[in-house]
Amino acid sequence: MSETFRAVTISDGELVLTDRDCATPSAGQAVVAVAAAGLNAADLLQRRGFYPAPPGWPTDIPGLECAGTVVRVGEGVDPSLVGQRVAAIVGGGGQAGECVLPASHLLHLPESVEWASAGGFAEAFTTAYDALVRQANLQAGERVAISGAAGGVGVAAVQLASALGAHVVAVTRDETHHSALRELGASECVTVDTVAQCAPVNVILELVGAAHLSVAQRILAPKSRVVVIGVGGGGRVEIDLLGVMATRATITGSTLRARPSEEKAEIAAAMQRDVVPLLANGTVRVPIAGTYSLEDAAAAYDTFGQPGKLGKIVLLT
Amino acid sequence: MSETFRAVTISDGELVLTDRDCATPSAGQAVVAVAAAGLNAADLLQRRGFYPAPPGWPTDIPGLECAGTVVRVGEGVDPSLVGQRVAAIVGGGGQAGECVLPASHLLHLPESVEWASAGGFAEAFTTAYDALVRQANLQAGERVAISGAAGGVGVAAVQLASALGAHVVAVTRDETHHSALRELGASECVTVDTVAQCAPVNVILELVGAAHLSVAQRILAPKSRVVVIGVGGGGRVEIDLLGVMATRATITGSTLRARPSEEKAEIAAAMQRDVVPLLANGTVRVPIAGTYSLEDAAAAYDTFGQPGKLGKIVLLT
Repeated sequence: MSETFRAVTISDGELVLTDRDCATPSAGQAVVAVAAAGLNAADLLQRRGFYPAPPGWPTDIPGLECAGTVVRVGEGVDPSLVGQRVAAIVGGGGQAGECVLPASHLLHLPESVEWASAGGFAEAFTTAYDALVRQANLQAGERVAISGAAGGVGVAAVQLASALGAHVVAVTRDETHHSALRELGASECVTVDTVAQCAPVNVILELVGAAHLSVAQRILAPKSRVVVIGVGGGGRVEIDLLGVMATRATITGSTLRARPSEEKAEIAAAMQRDVVPLLANGTVRVPIAGTYSLEDAAAAYDTFGQPGKLGKIVLLT
Repeated sequence: MSETFRAVTISDGELVLTDRDCATPSAGQAVVAVAAAGLNAADLLQRRGFYPAPPGWPTDIPGLECAGTVVRVGEGVDPSLVGQRVAAIVGGGGQAGECVLPASHLLHLPESVEWASAGGFAEAFTTAYDALVRQANLQAGERVAISGAAGGVGVAAVQLASALGAHVVAVTRDETHHSALRELGASECVTVDTVAQCAPVNVILELVGAAHLSVAQRILAPKSRVVVIGVGGGGRVEIDLLGVMATRATITGSTLRARPSEEKAEIAAAMQRDVVPLLANGTVRVPIAGTYSLEDAAAAYDTFGQPGKLGKIVLLT
């Protein structure tokens, strides 16, 4: 056991590498030697002082997900976990050499999944799975519009919805990634400017917010469900309540980060059952837009903040 | 069997009494000799040429509810229904001497319910019941804000929610009816100007629309449910999507009128089981703001259109 590990740390809005003391896991916890950690939009917010980590998680080490090998476990955790290849969503602290988390949140991955993919898997696929399956109850044969389809969660959602047998309408800002999205399973690719001309959809997975939902609400089918999980394109939107009444549509939203630990464990178990096998057998994959070392975290964040990429930016330790 | 009946009829926005031929009920239908028929907000819209009756219902006779005695039944309907005291929601045509409707939509009322109450019961209580119980899943001990609480549906909802064991926050335009609403079961009475200062609520029954929901969305508790069934105070409202995400709130809406006949029968059966007994034993009642004859329908509509009343306006044949 090394006595310290390196961590990306937020200091006055800058990202610096610092050394931190290794922790002894408490009851129920596991320590992961991180091999890879994906970037997510919330990291940029957190760097700017918004979207703080929930209680119990590192406040100054960003990173909502990681993958690696279990190196120590706390009381009550199966010791045979040590040495296993895992990935997980964490409340913070993923972008570091070690990360401590509840063992019940771990996803167990086969060797066939390479580290970059593993590091960018948990947050995007869990977010997409929770929204599409657990919240929107998307069914085979239904039509689903996915805004922000070229982003990390969008790419995961397009693949998962397609694997579920849904007809996927991928909505993007422009047409840059339409052919890539078709290869990932999208049946139709449109832009925010043309989405209102689509046939009605049963589900909208809203990853953009007002800029998309303000127009997409016009194509809600009867009993459709809108699940809002991203608002980078505006957090306040004018909703046509008569349209909601006429269609009996449901609009809801959530963040994964705020959920109680027990619910996160439940979602992890569902992911292990329903989605990890799809990753293992190649039905879904984690497109990688770029990998960076921990030392180059600032460059990784800069790239992440630029439009035009498709796939995840992942830090490799 | 009389060969004609009198009906309130819409002609160029005016209400006139006309004679109509009595109908022979088709299979599954019953004919009710109407004794009383409540007014509803949709009647005013229909008079102005909006909100047309759905297919299969009279297009020029208003009236979304009625009560009376079954006088004839069609094939496949239990003949012992004839002579029974009933109330029902109808797609149109309630404000007339006779009304033809699916027998499966009938609510069976005891003799103890007087005709004025019976005529104003079905639409308001079914709407409130469907929204509170079937859509919002309101539970005992939860807090529910009911906007437009002094209106027909509001008064029904305040009583039903109270009977369910919920803590009722009655929201009105002004304080005029607060003491009456407390007597009907409201725990708190506030105005649209002060509702944002209330403790968080688990359910909002939105009977007003934008004018109320624009402020009331600030007091949504975690996992709260908003059910929109009226938009007289504005049909377009700016929703704070970050607030929805943070609370995991659900916003939905509906109209009863557009539902398939089978669903209306299912709701009627649930009303018969859950709500008619409350009316029969006096737990809930139908406050009457005024009764009018069919000849005075225009005066009844004028009174209905004025603010300041509490309870139903009912036409007696």
